[in-house]
Amino acid sequence: MKAFVFQGPGQTSWQDVPDPGIKDAADVIVRVDAVTICGTDLHIIKGDVPDVAPGTVLGHEAVGEVMETGGDVRTVRPGDRVLVSCIAACGRCRFCRENRYGQCRGGGGWVLGHLVDGTQAEYVRVPFADLSVHPLPSQVDNDDAVLLADIFPTAYEVGVVNGHVGPGDTLVVVGAGPIGLAVIATARLYTPGRIIAVDLAASRLTAARAVGADATVSADEEPERLVEDLTDGLGADVVVEAVGVPESFEMCTRMVRPGGRVANVGVHGKPAALHLEDLWIKDVTITTGLVDTHSTPLLLRMVAAGKLPASGLVTHRFELGQMEEAYDVFSRAADTGALKVVLGGPRHDAVDRPAEPLSAPRV
Amino acid sequence: MKAFVFQGPGQTSWQDVPDPGIKDAADVIVRVDAVTICGTDLHIIKGDVPDVAPGTVLGHEAVGEVMETGGDVRTVRPGDRVLVSCIAACGRCRFCRENRYGQCRGGGGWVLGHLVDGTQAEYVRVPFADLSVHPLPSQVDNDDAVLLADIFPTAYEVGVVNGHVGPGDTLVVVGAGPIGLAVIATARLYTPGRIIAVDLAASRLTAARAVGADATVSADEEPERLVEDLTDGLGADVVVEAVGVPESFEMCTRMVRPGGRVANVGVHGKPAALHLEDLWIKDVTITTGLVDTHSTPLLLRMVAAGKLPASGLVTHRFELGQMEEAYDVFSRAADTGALKVVLGGPRHDAVDRPAEPLSAPRV
Amino acid sequence: MKAFVFQGPGQTSWQDVPDPGIKDAADVIVRVDAVTICGTDLHIIKGDVPDVAPGTVLGHEAVGEVMETGGDVRTVRPGDRVLVSCIAACGRCRFCRENRYGQCRGGGGWVLGHLVDGTQAEYVRVPFADLSVHPLPSQVDNDDAVLLADIFPTAYEVGVVNGHVGPGDTLVVVGAGPIGLAVIATARLYTPGRIIAVDLAASRLTAARAVGADATVSADEEPERLVEDLTDGLGADVVVEAVGVPESFEMCTRMVRPGGRVANVGVHGKPAALHLEDLWIKDVTITTGLVDTHSTPLLLRMVAAGKLPASGLVTHRFELGQMEEAYDVFSRAADTGALKVVLGGPRHDAVDRPAEPLSAPRV
Amino acid sequence: MKAFVFQGPGQTSWQDVPDPGIKDAADVIVRVDAVTICGTDLHIIKGDVPDVAPGTVLGHEAVGEVMETGGDVRTVRPGDRVLVSCIAACGRCRFCRENRYGQCRGGGGWVLGHLVDGTQAEYVRVPFADLSVHPLPSQVDNDDAVLLADIFPTAYEVGVVNGHVGPGDTLVVVGAGPIGLAVIATARLYTPGRIIAVDLAASRLTAARAVGADATVSADEEPERLVEDLTDGLGADVVVEAVGVPESFEMCTRMVRPGGRVANVGVHGKPAALHLEDLWIKDVTITTGLVDTHSTPLLLRMVAAGKLPASGLVTHRFELGQMEEAYDVFSRAADTGALKVVLGGPRHDAVDRPAEPLSAPRV
Repeated sequence: MKAFVFQGPGQTSWQDVPDPGIKDAADVIVRVDAVTICGTDLHIIKGDVPDVAPGTVLGHEAVGEVMETGGDVRTVRPGDRVLVSCIAACGRCRFCRENRYGQCRGGGGWVLGHLVDGTQAEYVRVPFADLSVHPLPSQVDNDDAVLLADIFPTAYEVGVVNGHVGPGDTLVVVGAGPIGLAVIATARLYTPGRIIAVDLAASRLTAARAVGADATVSADEEPERLVEDLTDGLGADVVVEAVGVPESFEMCTRMVRPGGRVANVGVHGKPAALHLEDLWIKDVTITTGLVDTHSTPLLLRMVAAGKLPASGLVTHRFELGQMEEAYDVFSRAADTGALKVVLGGPRHDAVDRPAEPLSAPRV
Repeated sequence: MKAFVFQGPGQTSWQDVPDPGIKDAADVIVRVDAVTICGTDLHIIKGDVPDVAPGTVLGHEAVGEVMETGGDVRTVRPGDRVLVSCIAACGRCRFCRENRYGQCRGGGGWVLGHLVDGTQAEYVRVPFADLSVHPLPSQVDNDDAVLLADIFPTAYEVGVVNGHVGPGDTLVVVGAGPIGLAVIATARLYTPGRIIAVDLAASRLTAARAVGADATVSADEEPERLVEDLTDGLGADVVVEAVGVPESFEMCTRMVRPGGRVANVGVHGKPAALHLEDLWIKDVTITTGLVDTHSTPLLLRMVAAGKLPASGLVTHRFELGQMEEAYDVFSRAADTGALKVVLGGPRHDAVDRPAEPLSAPRV
Repeated sequence: MKAFVFQGPGQTSWQDVPDPGIKDAADVIVRVDAVTICGTDLHIIKGDVPDVAPGTVLGHEAVGEVMETGGDVRTVRPGDRVLVSCIAACGRCRFCRENRYGQCRGGGGWVLGHLVDGTQAEYVRVPFADLSVHPLPSQVDNDDAVLLADIFPTAYEVGVVNGHVGPGDTLVVVGAGPIGLAVIATARLYTPGRIIAVDLAASRLTAARAVGADATVSADEEPERLVEDLTDGLGADVVVEAVGVPESFEMCTRMVRPGGRVANVGVHGKPAALHLEDLWIKDVTITTGLVDTHSTPLLLRMVAAGKLPASGLVTHRFELGQMEEAYDVFSRAADTGALKVVLGGPRHDAVDRPAEPLSAPRV
Repeated sequence: MKAFVFQGPGQTSWQDVPDPGIKDAADVIVRVDAVTICGTDLHIIKGDVPDVAPGTVLGHEAVGEVMETGGDVRTVRPGDRVLVSCIAACGRCRFCRENRYGQCRGGGGWVLGHLVDGTQAEYVRVPFADLSVHPLPSQVDNDDAVLLADIFPTAYEVGVVNGHVGPGDTLVVVGAGPIGLAVIATARLYTPGRIIAVDLAASRLTAARAVGADATVSADEEPERLVEDLTDGLGADVVVEAVGVPESFEMCTRMVRPGGRVANVGVHGKPAALHLEDLWIKDVTITTGLVDTHSTPLLLRMVAAGKLPASGLVTHRFELGQMEEAYDVFSRAADTGALKVVLGGPRHDAVDRPAEPLSAPRV
């Protein structure tokens, strides 16, 4: 089959590799019908994730059809249309028993496209299938579904749920890339009073308004002052960090009100300064986390009920064989306006979405 | 009357000052029968708390008798024996309505011995008395009660409750001074599986064992390795910072397990490094906070029921007039072995506790 | 002044009574600009609430202007436009400290129009004003505000919050009178997956759809079967009882899924059968409660932000002097289609709402 | 092998049956080293549980050694000493994913000695072994462990956790049989302020004091008045029903304070009256539930740490072959003073506990 293979820093190719087969009784083989590219894939290619061995097929998000199942798989059958989640769960370790699948100690967690071959291929072997793939209701189309493999549960669990967003809250989302936009979209499930988005790119602030931000402000136009003004000097109830750099995190801790929460979603490569000389007295809660995908069934229900139009973040569409082109567009997001790109033929239902940047995101 | 007055950095005196009087209908005047000294008082004297104006009477903890009440006081009467809490609460602002009295915006919060004259005096005016003083059951003696003015609710609320200590948890307490010891004592209300105390002073580790630590380790003998060994390499469920320096806070964030909590109780003067490059993926919750004293009625019930022997932390006892001597002993804790010192005559019930360092703390 | 006075079972009149005056330093006198009638008022008139002494002015909901304040009132001033809440709170007792104002032991709780003269008058004395009246933002008009005196916080706190309604939940509301409709409207703040309303009256089911129910079913057309069908035989996540009769409550306990919640909002006069022979094994949580109005500031923010159009439940409007006419219309709701009636001149802002039944409720 | 077989109402025998074998890849075969008898077994024998087919081996609690494992078992191996839990969990259904194993829809839940052959035998087949058996630390002896198969997690989860027992609470436990005693023992993990036990049998009240009740009262000596007196007329914070009859449940709902919780643990055969005419206004939470055994690992840690001496409830000891004798003693508890009986040879560690009623329970 064809697959997108990491060959070492800066080196990748869409090439022939052997078809995957069942290795463990809990495995399934899935034919990939739709797949997307994550910012993390770009980090891997740059060489930032040394755990990824050369020769690994990348990708940890997909929608497809089950082709074959191991002897111990009880919940899906060949022919089922499924979502392949970015997190696999052994279901037996102490973390899986607490629904912390992202911290699985039994061989799961984030393994696809990281420790084992991933989803940017024609077929993928998925371990621990019973807890790692989700049968798809027919109302959920491929574009919506594939965004529930990683980005939407990450935004919801690590941003909205960890941040305890509630009705009436003032929520600030720092970073309006795909993950920040998904935070805004899922935060709305709790009807915050006001959502303020912060970013440097005007196009992303426009996208933020489209998905539901009530106010937007450029990161270089004193966002802290805006938050202060809008909250009578008190600060925001919840601030979500969705960038991943120290300056952004530190801004979040200055924007939060006494008694408020800062939920970090960004992937960081460096330490930040934690200004305990100000914060020790301020009753602040700071959370970090990797997605567990325990919310995926809930989010699928919300999409099926028409209450979470996830696919509004899809700006570009490609055939699976156009993987290198898709990477090019996605990696030059500042120029191309890419938010999420989806690859894959319209096997489920022919959505004739134009393969070009969205002028008005549909979320 | 006599009172202990801050006259500017490094300058204090036990001197004559005018008796306090009712200024607001919500005030009470309390005759001070027992008072203690807090580490914060030492910081004020050093000049670290510039809000404190020269001429201010210090002290924010006391037990005494109500002498006079303002017209709007409904819950106590002259003659009542009360605990004077370190936090006053207007009871009307949004923070008071959420029980966050420490963040009161209506004139309360930490005001005694800070913004208004405090308790290290023969008499003290207490604002917002209905929510700021607590009538004392007769079973609770002065020594136990005065420790419930600040140190015990701080340890319980900011350490144990914020840290969500639960049955079976592995709890690490970094810093075994009075506040760390009170964390250990109040954490035991939730029967953690194992409490590990970390400090540099051997005498404090001995005190930690006496109040209930299951294991102790010197801060310079690789405490992180001990925690690792005792938790199969996983880390602690809850880590409480009770020192207030960056190194200590950073150690806490390395000791916590994935999914665990770090509760900061220490008063910090400098930023710490937050190693988000490790922590972003680790599902960690970090909390900070000033005490609200919402737990004071509960802690009083526990003391009255014989289930929280708070006064075990009292190592030295003085007459009220020996204030300067008491400060001297308390400020040289490394030499004197002082944990908490109590000043005041045995007006409530003559406890003949020896006025010397505790060989075996009674908690 | 004129007021609506209960003279004993079945006897009421709109008559002259002395103007109220300040009796306690925590009181305020409010000129009533808008007032509504509650189902409870009808019960009082029938003689079902023997605590209400003949001679009492009825009514526990109002919007108006502060005319005079007691010496201990700190948060409002003469001239302020305020909401008068159905619950007064002493702010000092153990229940008030836990925000359970409805259970106040210090002289508050539900007192207006019950133990002291109420709001169906030209002026009303409100006790414990600082925690019992709420200054109104100018964006909130009288009609919206007066519905936040009782019905909306009751629906939200006792129905939605006690029932822990969350995103994606299947919610059944049994009873689509004003309170059930307010449950539906406030439940939507949490984006349940599906709201099913049950009632006998077709007009109320129509109103339920208008405020946001996704499905409706007549109480005599096997609502339990519909719930079963819609939930694959499992039952609803949350069921709210908003009628107040044993049959309705018992139906609720049959409709709830294993692990689900039944939140009782109805006012009951008789015991219900609790089928523990079925329920003991079913992991069910049942809650009851009187409103505390701790959510009133939040609900006011939501109204001000345009996210909770409370006044959609207002079907009829009268002048204050038309009290007897208003009672007549409200008490014959089956004929008149009345949901909520509002009395009062358009002092705040002239909303030219037609004084007639709503064909399409605006919530 | 030998096993205790239900042959229809009133008919049982300790007889030869075929040895069990692996039927499913998730099964294990365990050699039974210790087993106990549950009140539910007596109900089955009386014919109260019609699901149990004649020919079924009874028993749902055991400690033993794994002899054989199915191909899909990953967490235990032959030779491992394990606890066999009363609840099996498929680990895949929506309830298992929420840790509600007792409600498992995938073939688990309470099946042993109910829908499939149970543990009162020399060997037992345990389905879904990875989530249904627990490897035992060597510090935990058989007697302690076997009580963690059902009674202790039931008491803890359905009584203490559902009832939200917390420090300082007044807790009333109605029914001081084995399950009520286990509620008292596990409630102490949260240091309630006062535990009051209610029962008719003086011997059980003595046992209640031995496991930690602070006060006891006979069910026919006005227990409600005692609770009133001890709580200033307010009622208890938490009341646990551990009997299973309507009168007892109804007493619980009268004893609870406004804002309090009633946690039902008793197995009921009839409806109770729920006095909503009193309770609707009282802010009460009532919970029911079947054990999920999600707390078993925690309870095992507490036993291993010496903080939960579960085996103090064991009053009688037998060889496995003395099953009929053991049933006789257990079923005549009023005469024999039996709380829990344990059958099995001292294979793990020879505890020379006398096989006779406990004069002073050791918990």
